[in-house]
Amino acid sequence: MNITLHQTEHTIADFEGIFTYLKTHFNKKTTGIHLFPELFLSGYPLQDLCLQKPFVQKYQNFLEELRIWLKDHVNLKECHLLMGGLKYTLSENNIPITIENVVYLSSNNSILEPIYTKRLLPNYDIFDEKKYFTKGRSSKVIEIAGQKYGILICEDMWASTFHDLDPVKELFEFCDDISLAGIFNFSASPYILRKDQKRLTRAKEISHLFQCPFYYVNRIGGEDEILFDGNSFAVNGEELLAKAKRFKTEKLNIESIKPTKYLSDSKLTHGVTWEELFQADLVTNNGETHIAHWSDEDCQEVLEALCFGFQQYARKNGFNKFTLALSGGMDSALVLTIMTLSLSQEQYLEAVYMPSIHSSPLSFELSLGLCKNLGIPLKSLPIKFLHSTTKNLFGQTFNEPFEGLTDENIQSRLRGTLLYTRSNQIGSMVVNTSNKSELAVGYSTQYGDSVGAISLLGDLYKSQVYRLSEYINSKYKNLIPEEIITRPPTAELREGQVDTDSLPPYEMLDAILEGILNYRYTKTDLTELGFPEEQVEKTLNMYRRNEYKRYQFCPIIKISSKSFGFGYRVPLSKETSFYNY
Amino acid sequence: MNITLHQTEHTIADFEGIFTYLKTHFNKKTTGIHLFPELFLSGYPLQDLCLQKPFVQKYQNFLEELRIWLKDHVNLKECHLLMGGLKYTLSENNIPITIENVVYLSSNNSILEPIYTKRLLPNYDIFDEKKYFTKGRSSKVIEIAGQKYGILICEDMWASTFHDLDPVKELFEFCDDISLAGIFNFSASPYILRKDQKRLTRAKEISHLFQCPFYYVNRIGGEDEILFDGNSFAVNGEELLAKAKRFKTEKLNIESIKPTKYLSDSKLTHGVTWEELFQADLVTNNGETHIAHWSDEDCQEVLEALCFGFQQYARKNGFNKFTLALSGGMDSALVLTIMTLSLSQEQYLEAVYMPSIHSSPLSFELSLGLCKNLGIPLKSLPIKFLHSTTKNLFGQTFNEPFEGLTDENIQSRLRGTLLYTRSNQIGSMVVNTSNKSELAVGYSTQYGDSVGAISLLGDLYKSQVYRLSEYINSKYKNLIPEEIITRPPTAELREGQVDTDSLPPYEMLDAILEGILNYRYTKTDLTELGFPEEQVEKTLNMYRRNEYKRYQFCPIIKISSKSFGFGYRVPLSKETSFYNY
Repeated sequence: MNITLHQTEHTIADFEGIFTYLKTHFNKKTTGIHLFPELFLSGYPLQDLCLQKPFVQKYQNFLEELRIWLKDHVNLKECHLLMGGLKYTLSENNIPITIENVVYLSSNNSILEPIYTKRLLPNYDIFDEKKYFTKGRSSKVIEIAGQKYGILICEDMWASTFHDLDPVKELFEFCDDISLAGIFNFSASPYILRKDQKRLTRAKEISHLFQCPFYYVNRIGGEDEILFDGNSFAVNGEELLAKAKRFKTEKLNIESIKPTKYLSDSKLTHGVTWEELFQADLVTNNGETHIAHWSDEDCQEVLEALCFGFQQYARKNGFNKFTLALSGGMDSALVLTIMTLSLSQEQYLEAVYMPSIHSSPLSFELSLGLCKNLGIPLKSLPIKFLHSTTKNLFGQTFNEPFEGLTDENIQSRLRGTLLYTRSNQIGSMVVNTSNKSELAVGYSTQYGDSVGAISLLGDLYKSQVYRLSEYINSKYKNLIPEEIITRPPTAELREGQVDTDSLPPYEMLDAILEGILNYRYTKTDLTELGFPEEQVEKTLNMYRRNEYKRYQFCPIIKISSKSFGFGYRVPLSKETSFYNY
Repeated sequence: MNITLHQTEHTIADFEGIFTYLKTHFNKKTTGIHLFPELFLSGYPLQDLCLQKPFVQKYQNFLEELRIWLKDHVNLKECHLLMGGLKYTLSENNIPITIENVVYLSSNNSILEPIYTKRLLPNYDIFDEKKYFTKGRSSKVIEIAGQKYGILICEDMWASTFHDLDPVKELFEFCDDISLAGIFNFSASPYILRKDQKRLTRAKEISHLFQCPFYYVNRIGGEDEILFDGNSFAVNGEELLAKAKRFKTEKLNIESIKPTKYLSDSKLTHGVTWEELFQADLVTNNGETHIAHWSDEDCQEVLEALCFGFQQYARKNGFNKFTLALSGGMDSALVLTIMTLSLSQEQYLEAVYMPSIHSSPLSFELSLGLCKNLGIPLKSLPIKFLHSTTKNLFGQTFNEPFEGLTDENIQSRLRGTLLYTRSNQIGSMVVNTSNKSELAVGYSTQYGDSVGAISLLGDLYKSQVYRLSEYINSKYKNLIPEEIITRPPTAELREGQVDTDSLPPYEMLDAILEGILNYRYTKTDLTELGFPEEQVEKTLNMYRRNEYKRYQFCPIIKISSKSFGFGYRVPLSKETSFYNY
């Protein structure tokens, strides 16, 4: 029997869109087995929405309507649907008692029958599933047209040592006397760089173990900081039977399964442990440690992820106009380029250049050059007069000097203010331009250059910002003026300022940060890797002092295993002397 | 044997402070049983800190040092310590495999022996314990000097229907043949208004059930948004044997237990269910529904909570200077008053008044009057000229009109910029002045009046802001000029503006919001309660459009069961038509 993986994309709680999809793709003549992603019927991650009464009521009614429609419009003797969704048990006041993350089967006389509850509820990093869901207690095998299939939901395919539950192993024991025609995995699996490869490896291992094909259906979508990449697939032993694209909707059809040579001694590698979860992406060559180099393929994947994430956020929050502050530096140039590459005809993007007394003519030249290359209008809004006016105002009212950091921050905050004034004026969304290195050490001004609705580069270290820019320039024939890439990074907030006045060189800073941010290295460990002690200390000091800036930052599109954002939870108030350890 | 409850307060990860406390309070002559709060040895909530290698290493070493000190300096034959702490199982790379929330016993030959692991790990609202901790699997009774005591950690004393685990019931069955001399509960239980009463009720029920005293030790502290109130106690049946103060450290000594008449048919009420967790605090009188009135006692409790939370945040983040924007309105007046009431001699607080062309002379007069009453310096920093300069700048560069919302927001953002410039100039902390009603409907300007390091009123509805102000005025003889309380609320961002131009009357708005924010009411439910449909719709529309403002907001001191902040998790990107339900 044909098996179809529906790699769908729907906004959270868009019940109408989900219904339309089903009505478009199914009728009395449709046949085969159809697999839909985890929580297809509701969206994911819902967070507190799944507790809000209006949501619960609407969802329950939607299920009822769908039930009637399926009964009347699909031939369930020939067409079998397996869809992820929520299952509520409600109190007499219609308040949830339990919520389960289940697979609904519609086949023969079963219509939207919940047949399996997710057993392994991820609750690390960005995941919050134990907050809302009650876990399932047993394995499940279903029979369709005389064939038997094992069921798993997303995380179930991974073992977790710290929650001592292993649904794959339990399913394997459950299938002692049963010959499976396949295993179905229903997923809403968040994107991180190269995660697709890990899923494939694990799926092949399970396919060998059970000696049957493994079907993996994943959703796509951008939910604030979290992306879902799709990359649905079917494998049989080592063989990749079919694979869907990343970040695109797709109906992936798998027609028939050829015989496969399974390994007899298959074993499962990789589980969910604190040790596996946040691995520092560092390599040591000739005694020098740095963050792992991104291949061209990595760069292309990240570029697609950022374009997709930006467009998803814009569409789902109702924006088709965008304003970006351009400084003549690398970060804003890359953000503008990514936005432009993803831009559709009906969207409007403009750049705003806001020079202060410290801005060099080169910065304007380079900004103008970039905008010409990209075909984006550049508006100039000098802050010099506002800056001196503010300085005078403070001189009249207060005796304290207005210089150093105060004078630097005021320029940045005036820019933030003007940028949002422009945003108000035309109803545009402001995109943030900070990178991960800056965020980690607090090298930005709160309510100044740190403003924005969404951050595209907040999970890229500065050296990765350069790497991605070079990749784009090699692919698109020097779209970004070369001098933006080669000039020394500077905030231009005082005369002759360069970033290395305050920070270690970025190559070194980024490697130290990768060690710190993945929670794997102490100060001693980092100095033993060869980093100068004073640079490690400086980095740690800046990192621990700036939690408050990260706290009020916008969502950051996540591409790494440990990004700032929802999965990064560090108290502001704390004694930090242990970082000296 | 004497039992002492140590109601302590230590900054997260302040191992030195914890050690000093023990060295100060214990020596060879100390006797009795000493109970310390949950996670006393590490601090709580640690969030990701408990995964960071420097923290883990330092904590492990601290335990080793403490072990040696206890052996040499305390007579463990006569003095028995029970302290909450973390228990790590580490991999060979020193990465956590499991982390447990345990009680360490030091008694006789046991020194820091982990004897019990917390069983019920709260993971709702602000809680994240299942993210980090592995739960315990069995009940525990210990024997000290021939007497037997049952052990519970915090949440264990509550039953949870959605996690189907009931440690109290299991302990009760475990104690079938055992006569207990007491039950010890080790807590780090976050504050919410009137929660103390719930704990007492539950503790008495358990005391009746087990027919023995119940000892409850809780920490105090302010950890960003979360407060711990202490309120440690011992009960015996209905009798309150001893009770510690709220928000103050205390050593509570319980000398001997009198015989008590226990109820034979005790039953346990209140559990942890979605239905119990977020109850809307609404009352209906004569057909009119409004939020429940705060008694004077409630007001006093909230006032203490806000003073405590502000001071904790300031101290733990190293600030003793503060800057507040004063508008002449109710919110900023109340914040200034609370800050002043909590101020210590070495702290400096100043108010900044930033009038625009729309500010009335009355606003200045009232601000000045308040500052005189409080003895706080008031600085005036007019934004008129900056405002018109910006307007001209935009006129020169852009053709679009600069009016309406654009013109309103620019005033608010210029104020935010000036306020932080002042903060930079003197190294002061800026305190936010938004209230819960504003936050709920987004009636504020992002990066404008919504700036600040911490919010004192973000969990108080506007009508509660008035109620608390009236309470303060009755207690402190009209500290706040009466006209601040009686004048109609206005943002003064355009000529003649009052809040009710855009919002329902606050009494009604707050009641509608309480229904929405506790997830208990749909639009239909609210109109059935008697609220006009257009006001409910207006409120729902504003609520659902402004998630992005709340996302970038500072920590809010939590006083209610559902506050904006860490426990409020709602996606930005979503289809919101279900709110029409």
